[in-house]
Amino acid sequence: MVIDPATTPIPEIYRHLTAAITPRPIAWVSSLSAQGVANLAPFSFFNGVGANPPAVMFSPVNRRDGSRKDTILNIEATREFVINIVPEALAAVMNQTSAEYPSEISEFAACHLTQVPSRIVKPPRLQESPVHFECVLHQIVRVGDGPLSANIVIGRVVMIHANDDVLDPAGQIDPDRVQTVGRMGAILYSRTKDRFELARPNAPSR
Amino acid sequence: MVIDPATTPIPEIYRHLTAAITPRPIAWVSSLSAQGVANLAPFSFFNGVGANPPAVMFSPVNRRDGSRKDTILNIEATREFVINIVPEALAAVMNQTSAEYPSEISEFAACHLTQVPSRIVKPPRLQESPVHFECVLHQIVRVGDGPLSANIVIGRVVMIHANDDVLDPAGQIDPDRVQTVGRMGAILYSRTKDRFELARPNAPSR
Repeated sequence: MVIDPATTPIPEIYRHLTAAITPRPIAWVSSLSAQGVANLAPFSFFNGVGANPPAVMFSPVNRRDGSRKDTILNIEATREFVINIVPEALAAVMNQTSAEYPSEISEFAACHLTQVPSRIVKPPRLQESPVHFECVLHQIVRVGDGPLSANIVIGRVVMIHANDDVLDPAGQIDPDRVQTVGRMGAILYSRTKDRFELARPNAPSR
Repeated sequence: MVIDPATTPIPEIYRHLTAAITPRPIAWVSSLSAQGVANLAPFSFFNGVGANPPAVMFSPVNRRDGSRKDTILNIEATREFVINIVPEALAAVMNQTSAEYPSEISEFAACHLTQVPSRIVKPPRLQESPVHFECVLHQIVRVGDGPLSANIVIGRVVMIHANDDVLDPAGQIDPDRVQTVGRMGAILYSRTKDRFELARPNAPSR
């Protein structure tokens, strides 16, 4: 199958991208509106980008009617956000926060989730999540401007929090204690319990 | 545990980011040098960003000595690349292509992998991979400039290829037939066989 994006409906392109680029990590993003309402919403176009300085990206795509979501509007207005990591035990409530609540309603209240203050940024952290990244906006890069178009939010990580109960004895984040989930296509998610190791390859001889 | 990036060694920050942001999809990127040597290398700071136009990002971080990898040098020089998706059956050879081959050596030849021509861009596709995205450079965003700093490559997808044997009868990419792997921290990978579904939430009542 060859798909030419120039002649393919946008929702179909979106379906192929999200079915092929898997498993995707999930950023559960807290942000504050200019009016001070705390928002919490999940995004799976998310990843780290570098460590020096520590930086992450996520891309809330525009809605199917072309409008921007609360999270991107909030970050444009207040330039700060927190990324909360999603363990399997929180997957159902994470999914519930993806519903379209009115912007004056906080998903924290609507979904009975707990805010805790951040150290540096104003948006709260999600207490139920075991790992948080406090972030300051570095840059927003738009690619296109219509339904399902990209708003790439690049953030600098200014503080990292990890609950002690997800650390191994050496102080490292332990995948068996975090049990993240990944996003597959459609309404599918993958667990991360089934793992394998690959030793880094030797440098080839010259 | 609270980690202040301002006072933490960069490799330690990198370790925490890659242990917490999981599972990460893998872009196995083919590119061409200005001299025409085909390069193939895996990157797990990778994701889609939007569908209108279809766009992806990946970030090859600078090496620990601060130098840039061949992939970013190639894309700066020739502005095109192909993202090949990694099924579990190819994980070992994908890992082998992450070794530091000299820039005049092609990983395709060194690792006995097969080039097939792309439709629009000059870099070849990887025949052994079941899904390919032909990409044209949209923008490179750097965050910092030192060891493990970000070079965010944002690409527009100009053609999508999927082998018929990874499609379901409706022509959709089937996770059971692709069997992608995700990147966890350190030398760990996750499989995507163990999955669950979450129905999209209903719109809240107003």
